[in-house]
Amino acid sequence: MSTTAIKPRPLPTILLVGLVPVAAWFVTRPLLDPIPPLPALYASVGMSIFAFLATIHLVPRLGPVFIAANLKGRDLLKIYNDPIPESMGLVCAAIYISGLMLFIPFAFSTSIMHRASAAGPPEGINVVDFPLYQLSVYLSSLLSLLTATMLGFLDDVFDIRWRHKLPIPIIASIPLLMVYYAERGNTHVVVPLPLRSFFGTLLNLGPLYYIYMSLLSTFATNSINILAGINGSEVSQALIIGLSVILNDLLYLPWPIDFRVPLHLLGNKAEVEVGGVWSAGMSYGSRELVERHLFSLYFMLPLVAVCVGFMYHNWYPARAFPGDTFCYVTGMAFAVIGIQAHFSKTLLLFFIPQIFNFLLSCPQLFGLVPCPRHRVPRFDADTNLLFPSKTVFEKPPSRLTTYVLRILAALGLTELTVHPTSGMVLEATNLTILNFFLIRFGPMNEKRLVQVLMCSQIAGSALAFVIRYGLASLVYDGDRR
Amino acid sequence: MSTTAIKPRPLPTILLVGLVPVAAWFVTRPLLDPIPPLPALYASVGMSIFAFLATIHLVPRLGPVFIAANLKGRDLLKIYNDPIPESMGLVCAAIYISGLMLFIPFAFSTSIMHRASAAGPPEGINVVDFPLYQLSVYLSSLLSLLTATMLGFLDDVFDIRWRHKLPIPIIASIPLLMVYYAERGNTHVVVPLPLRSFFGTLLNLGPLYYIYMSLLSTFATNSINILAGINGSEVSQALIIGLSVILNDLLYLPWPIDFRVPLHLLGNKAEVEVGGVWSAGMSYGSRELVERHLFSLYFMLPLVAVCVGFMYHNWYPARAFPGDTFCYVTGMAFAVIGIQAHFSKTLLLFFIPQIFNFLLSCPQLFGLVPCPRHRVPRFDADTNLLFPSKTVFEKPPSRLTTYVLRILAALGLTELTVHPTSGMVLEATNLTILNFFLIRFGPMNEKRLVQVLMCSQIAGSALAFVIRYGLASLVYDGDRR
Repeated sequence: MSTTAIKPRPLPTILLVGLVPVAAWFVTRPLLDPIPPLPALYASVGMSIFAFLATIHLVPRLGPVFIAANLKGRDLLKIYNDPIPESMGLVCAAIYISGLMLFIPFAFSTSIMHRASAAGPPEGINVVDFPLYQLSVYLSSLLSLLTATMLGFLDDVFDIRWRHKLPIPIIASIPLLMVYYAERGNTHVVVPLPLRSFFGTLLNLGPLYYIYMSLLSTFATNSINILAGINGSEVSQALIIGLSVILNDLLYLPWPIDFRVPLHLLGNKAEVEVGGVWSAGMSYGSRELVERHLFSLYFMLPLVAVCVGFMYHNWYPARAFPGDTFCYVTGMAFAVIGIQAHFSKTLLLFFIPQIFNFLLSCPQLFGLVPCPRHRVPRFDADTNLLFPSKTVFEKPPSRLTTYVLRILAALGLTELTVHPTSGMVLEATNLTILNFFLIRFGPMNEKRLVQVLMCSQIAGSALAFVIRYGLASLVYDGDRR
Repeated sequence: MSTTAIKPRPLPTILLVGLVPVAAWFVTRPLLDPIPPLPALYASVGMSIFAFLATIHLVPRLGPVFIAANLKGRDLLKIYNDPIPESMGLVCAAIYISGLMLFIPFAFSTSIMHRASAAGPPEGINVVDFPLYQLSVYLSSLLSLLTATMLGFLDDVFDIRWRHKLPIPIIASIPLLMVYYAERGNTHVVVPLPLRSFFGTLLNLGPLYYIYMSLLSTFATNSINILAGINGSEVSQALIIGLSVILNDLLYLPWPIDFRVPLHLLGNKAEVEVGGVWSAGMSYGSRELVERHLFSLYFMLPLVAVCVGFMYHNWYPARAFPGDTFCYVTGMAFAVIGIQAHFSKTLLLFFIPQIFNFLLSCPQLFGLVPCPRHRVPRFDADTNLLFPSKTVFEKPPSRLTTYVLRILAALGLTELTVHPTSGMVLEATNLTILNFFLIRFGPMNEKRLVQVLMCSQIAGSALAFVIRYGLASLVYDGDRR
């Protein structure tokens, strides 16, 4: 046994203890008079704070247990060989899902509803009750999340090959699809303005919609899973996407204040409305839209909280690894809210860096370019810097491969090593966004690289908001169904 | 690496292939005109046959994968040392829960309901639709089962100590309790006749009812888990309890035939009614009772199917071990239907051998008598027989312990080894039902012992039916709520 040089990061205990009464107040707020307009949202905030506290405390506590059960790995980009607990996403998932389960009575309990309706007609849109329909949607979402956790953990234990595990999220989306079908979920999509002369305003995709939903969960899960390999990469993606979804949700809630963001600078007449008790911002008075975005918030607030707690231990140099479990459960959480709250197109906009990474990876994923087991950047122990890692062509690449690689190299997406006389491609940098950053910005250390990744994710989200609220009005009217 | 002498049991392939069209017919029957009175029940039977086929095929196929992932154990009661795959209950649980998920559209789909209601008013009680309320109950049950699977597998991977894992089923029952609370589930119990002058006909247990529900899941899970240790013991218990529940459920369904079982021989006026389209046997025309027992069948039919498939490989000499996962998921399945279909008292009657084993084990579980890590019978390699295993008193037992042991010995439940002169207790056979059988019937081989266990389980179920339908009318009237 090696003595562990990498000790758990110390916790700011006083700060954390101070959060307990805050969380307790939020959780009990729906039970106190007068009942606020969105009572369950208070409970959700409170439970999220508790989830954060549980994560930040339990991850270091359970690390040795995971190492003892052989759930461990060494950090490939470090000089030391200490075992780091792997699959700790299981702890995050357990806390996240337990929190969502304990939240059920707050969102769906008839007693809170009765007390609120006894208080007289409220001002504005108050979501104090959820119909049974919403409860079964919520429960099917939990089932999908739990299935994703289970499958992710099995993946960690049995170490399934990546080609076999690509369709696993489809299995996890079955509960979602089954309940969607049993309840005759909406399979219509709003057709973009230019195509309406062909398809009409609404197009019924029928069975194709179910395929779309299962592909969405596959994409959300795997796109996070393949953008991995350096400390904090998976968690920071989930964190920033989660925060972007929350920001988007807040635009649709009834707030006591009210302001507008004119978008004339983007060259169109669209405006972004925020708040206003009655019109509830972008919901324009639609109770259904408010409920959908509340639903999304109930899933995103604890997810972000758990990510923040886990990030503390996964940050460079990492004391804990997320494992596949983490990617499965966060990816599934995004797919769930995209499907159930009906904003999958907006959601996909928050995945711009992942889409870029996926498209860039395609030649390696689909066998055009050899794909080594790990595509993480190469670590140079002397300088403590990361360099682009390379894939070596053991036999001469085909003409198609050479052609594709030369285009990618011309676009600055890869760097090739060619034979000095024949011009044959001998090596290419692995086709990932991380290697791309290293090519563009030069070698950097691991902490800087994850910061660059986070900046690109934030920039992607900013672009997403511009597209969604600025440019989307060019191809969609306000019709959201 | 040792070469595996214990090969997987060969499968009767032709017989199994013949079952595929039978299963397919049952699954598609609800979609064919004319719609039968209980369409989803056909689908449930069909899916159960598929679940049986999947289990019997996948268990031997996945065995090597489990061994490779270090989920293996050796059989303590055999002369060979071959690694046997452990935790294979995970495969059973995965098939069982997947089947229940895929079953959702059959039981809750609006399209089947619409086609059925378009066919005109049916004769008798037809359960062609389930309200949304039932769907959320179904989903919360699935969540509890999946949580139990997850926790059982974690128990197998992390090898949690038994004192710590005793309360784990309470966690798995949280989804059940939360939805029960959110939907204002019934917390009243019918008071037995002799006590009605004190409490009235119905007693509202309130929060106590939730404690009762979580204790029921703890009992059902752990009582199967502690009656373990010989090939086939866990699976045979689950199988016979499941079959007993199915038999009980069938008494409440509408059948085209109709007969009565007079119980005068038991000295009271009760009768057991079976079938009759309108009165639906013991349901006496209550649609709610029919729905409850259908709900129970939907969970029990695939459970029994999976148990039969697994039994084939777990039967002496076992090629696969169930692990804690199996006990957790089956125990939780029984608790779920006992709670959701409101017949927990009847359910407990089917646990008579488990209750006996639990009560007998109490002195060891609660520290009065030393409890070794394994309490399974002792294997004698020369005769291939099992003998009662013994716990040794390293220090003299207390007066209370001696007193309890002497009573148990007088009742024939244990055998003591006493000091020839001082009369001090030196050894006692371990307090389990298996050792009790070996004391009463003498040493026997492992196969015979599991057969004795199965006989006791069947006898217990027969006794349960006599109590439920013969004697219960002495303390309860027909009021079932």
